[in-house]
Amino acid sequence: MDKRHFKPQHQDKYGVLRLIPLGGVGDVTKNMYIYEYGNDIVIIDCGLGFPNEAMPGIDLVIPDISYLRDKKERIRGIVITHAHDDHIGGLPYLWPELQCPIYAQRLAAGFIRAKFSEHRLPKNQINTLSFDSKLQLGVFNLSFYRVSHSVPDSSGIVLETPVGRVIHQADFKLDWTPVNGQVTEVGKVAAAGDKGVLLMLIDALRIEKEGYNLSESTIQPTFQRIEENSPGRIFLTTTSSNITRIQQALNVAAASGRRVAFLGRSMEGNFQVARDLGYLEVPPGLVIASDEIKRFSDNKLMIIIAGSQGQPGSALSRAANNDSKYVSIKEGDSIVFSADPIPGSESAQYALIDKLTKMGGNVYYTAITDDLHVSGHATAEEQKIMINLARPKYVMPIGATYRQMKLFSSMAGQMGWGKDKVILAEDGLVVTARPGQVVIDGRVEAKNVYVDGLGVGDVGNIVLRDRRVLAEEGIVLVIVPMDTRTSQLGGELDIISRGFVFEKEAEGLLEGAKKIVRSALSDHPQGVLDWRFIRRHIEESLEQYFYEETQRRPMILPVVVEV
Amino acid sequence: MDKRHFKPQHQDKYGVLRLIPLGGVGDVTKNMYIYEYGNDIVIIDCGLGFPNEAMPGIDLVIPDISYLRDKKERIRGIVITHAHDDHIGGLPYLWPELQCPIYAQRLAAGFIRAKFSEHRLPKNQINTLSFDSKLQLGVFNLSFYRVSHSVPDSSGIVLETPVGRVIHQADFKLDWTPVNGQVTEVGKVAAAGDKGVLLMLIDALRIEKEGYNLSESTIQPTFQRIEENSPGRIFLTTTSSNITRIQQALNVAAASGRRVAFLGRSMEGNFQVARDLGYLEVPPGLVIASDEIKRFSDNKLMIIIAGSQGQPGSALSRAANNDSKYVSIKEGDSIVFSADPIPGSESAQYALIDKLTKMGGNVYYTAITDDLHVSGHATAEEQKIMINLARPKYVMPIGATYRQMKLFSSMAGQMGWGKDKVILAEDGLVVTARPGQVVIDGRVEAKNVYVDGLGVGDVGNIVLRDRRVLAEEGIVLVIVPMDTRTSQLGGELDIISRGFVFEKEAEGLLEGAKKIVRSALSDHPQGVLDWRFIRRHIEESLEQYFYEETQRRPMILPVVVEV
Repeated sequence: MDKRHFKPQHQDKYGVLRLIPLGGVGDVTKNMYIYEYGNDIVIIDCGLGFPNEAMPGIDLVIPDISYLRDKKERIRGIVITHAHDDHIGGLPYLWPELQCPIYAQRLAAGFIRAKFSEHRLPKNQINTLSFDSKLQLGVFNLSFYRVSHSVPDSSGIVLETPVGRVIHQADFKLDWTPVNGQVTEVGKVAAAGDKGVLLMLIDALRIEKEGYNLSESTIQPTFQRIEENSPGRIFLTTTSSNITRIQQALNVAAASGRRVAFLGRSMEGNFQVARDLGYLEVPPGLVIASDEIKRFSDNKLMIIIAGSQGQPGSALSRAANNDSKYVSIKEGDSIVFSADPIPGSESAQYALIDKLTKMGGNVYYTAITDDLHVSGHATAEEQKIMINLARPKYVMPIGATYRQMKLFSSMAGQMGWGKDKVILAEDGLVVTARPGQVVIDGRVEAKNVYVDGLGVGDVGNIVLRDRRVLAEEGIVLVIVPMDTRTSQLGGELDIISRGFVFEKEAEGLLEGAKKIVRSALSDHPQGVLDWRFIRRHIEESLEQYFYEETQRRPMILPVVVEV
Repeated sequence: MDKRHFKPQHQDKYGVLRLIPLGGVGDVTKNMYIYEYGNDIVIIDCGLGFPNEAMPGIDLVIPDISYLRDKKERIRGIVITHAHDDHIGGLPYLWPELQCPIYAQRLAAGFIRAKFSEHRLPKNQINTLSFDSKLQLGVFNLSFYRVSHSVPDSSGIVLETPVGRVIHQADFKLDWTPVNGQVTEVGKVAAAGDKGVLLMLIDALRIEKEGYNLSESTIQPTFQRIEENSPGRIFLTTTSSNITRIQQALNVAAASGRRVAFLGRSMEGNFQVARDLGYLEVPPGLVIASDEIKRFSDNKLMIIIAGSQGQPGSALSRAANNDSKYVSIKEGDSIVFSADPIPGSESAQYALIDKLTKMGGNVYYTAITDDLHVSGHATAEEQKIMINLARPKYVMPIGATYRQMKLFSSMAGQMGWGKDKVILAEDGLVVTARPGQVVIDGRVEAKNVYVDGLGVGDVGNIVLRDRRVLAEEGIVLVIVPMDTRTSQLGGELDIISRGFVFEKEAEGLLEGAKKIVRSALSDHPQGVLDWRFIRRHIEESLEQYFYEETQRRPMILPVVVEV
């Protein structure tokens, strides 16, 4: 047991609840929250994040579970709010170490099982919840309510804890006419509110949007209109977990006599799971295999395809680059982007739209077509409704950046929650709750853990810093053959560069560099005794020389070879 | 004279006009257009572009003037439409080679002179135009009309050519109540239209926006409101050439008794030029020097600061990182972003907003504050007005991406311009005009030329490809000492990596790699005769080994050292 963190219960009559976000507060993705009381730990969500431009070569980012390493036997379970990768995508990487039960609503459990199959992990600890489930995990009693979001079976969680009731409201919105009938169970939230809520965590991502979201069901008429104006094939792309969006596309295809093929690993996989679990109504014969596409005429085809953010390597990118086994974009195709660009991928999405247009496609996207996408996240007004249903003593914005959390704080202030009643946390901060009181009073380590190929956590900040330097300026190698008898240059100096200048056109520059190195060595006529010193000397002289000549600062790597 | 391109006049009674965009068509920035007839060449604009994520380390992109290299003596001048860097920023890099007269309206001429001073170039060929100027350049007769845009003195150009009248309408919008009184001279456009226009080039960037732009003068009341609610300092950032935006900030500061300091090289420089030329009304005593900031109390200060796109290293970024000589952001500061994020810099702007918020700043930005920015580019409706004033036979969208050009084509179609009357060009395509007829019928080289530090054009696609590989996966060096007598390994193998794995934690992996290399060498017991072959063999074996072990593909660089 970790003595630094665990306070024995006799210090406080009630003990304290510690809530530690390992991800999702201040950075939107890789959501993971620890709830700890006495000997019991419950984790909510275990998501992944996406690399930004300062993380070249990184595939994924996952939460740092250092804090949990010596507490594994106290973890009673991981409870999942919904089936998005930034809430479940960390499981294949982190569950093997945590080895605890997982609890999720039906669709999320299905998606997690598919992931575990792919990663060859055992599935016997994945447990399926219903919205009426009551779950006891140590001292915590959990119950659930349905919310609307851009994936079915999204939930809010009510945690009864020894210090009071906590509502964990991850991603949600209010949609009174959702496509799947899954209306937010506001009654359950109000009931919890009536009994008293100490703290409510709540999705604040869309605080910048005033008013209310349109309903998901506004999308199908748009698909319908586009179908009527499409003489050729329709390619429709959206987030592959957006099952109700896909249902609306299927409805339009079925009504207009088009067959539907799915392309892209995530799209095909999620469709399979959702259909097998009964989340999609698919008339028999509607869906065809990818290799049957060529059997149907263009005006009888709809292709639901992955890659709505312009991801390189996605099925839609490949179709746009004549690199797909099944389809290439051609004159007369309609391509429908039913997804806003997510922050950071605007350029990629627009570059793909441009490419598709150049190939003759007629592209529909949210900047020019109304009612082609609705967000899955609550606007400011919807957040206000949820807070007023729960009437918590404290509110804590989650799943948002700091600027959005600050706006949430202003909004909460206008609603009567003073600054001391709004918990502005960040990843790794410790939120401590006692009966009637919640404060921030500590910090644990919660850095980014990088996944690169098969490596989890083996690429750290030093490697990333090197990658950034290599990317900006390239590398110059200086091969110094050293005569071990004389401790002097014992052969031809060689200078090789990559990513710095085009060597064939920069011979003069590299010859000049050789002169600099020779002169650095000849400063030591008695022979060089400390090769570390001379390496540093070569580095510094060349840094200065290259900067003066080119105003660039390549990485310089002197290699001494004994001859 | 280039025989491939120049058709002698007797072939056509009139000869042909060749219009070649070297930049600006399909890529928005680095605008540069060649107009060529017989022995005469006129160039319109000479701009720079900005690197995207596929160009690591690149500072700027400029147009490729290969086509002009053997035609310099035929260039009669470079005529500038307006003072934005994507229309004038290429001059310091390309003018030294072209050495021809430059013609620009007064403010643009001032900005160009400042650039030439900085680059130590002669200024005697920079000529100042007025909107009533008539300019004869070889066979071309040019006249000008004023348009509204986000920098004063923006112009449209009417070119009388032997084959007919051409209107070159670069960036513009319609603003009937502009801050500086510079209303678009629609009468001049209509007069040209009455006389007959063969071809109109027109800014199509904002075709995706329906309706009309709000007037620039809607901004000052917003600044006013923010000022009234700001108990401390106001930091205001916008594009540094947006002189009328700066005028509105000055008006609010003057009315509220705040002193104004300018921070950032571009902001200070442009302010100086614009004030010296009389484009700004500045009450005496209003503007203070940067080092006087500390003499005034917070509620008496407005700081107009560069960095509205979140550029790293800009004055505002430095203020947010406690890295400025003059100011650091603190609790109580208001920071006003009077600029939408431009495509591709959304992440940088939002990251800076987050940072400023964390430091206690109260940040106003366009996503949450109305009337804080208006675009300088014509919406679809404004484009329609301009086209109907000129009534050209052919229209050609410029300054836009391909998807926007396609939308323009649809819009023109609805207005009665058939597909054969809409010229959809791209950089390097040759647009040929004869009396009554315009077609695309050729292509010249027009690649991107990269500026990196002092190097112009010395970084090409090979260097960039290496940089991308180095950024994604890093580099592995294999140092192979070769005994020249035995042609076999003559010392210790060494493997060094950067940006690949953290070496201290990957000893096993690198030891394994050494074994692979030794075994590659021992396949040649008689000694290695062809070292190029063995280098390739080492590369391939290690590529496979590292991919199997890590699923990464670092650059592998075997270096053979003779011992």
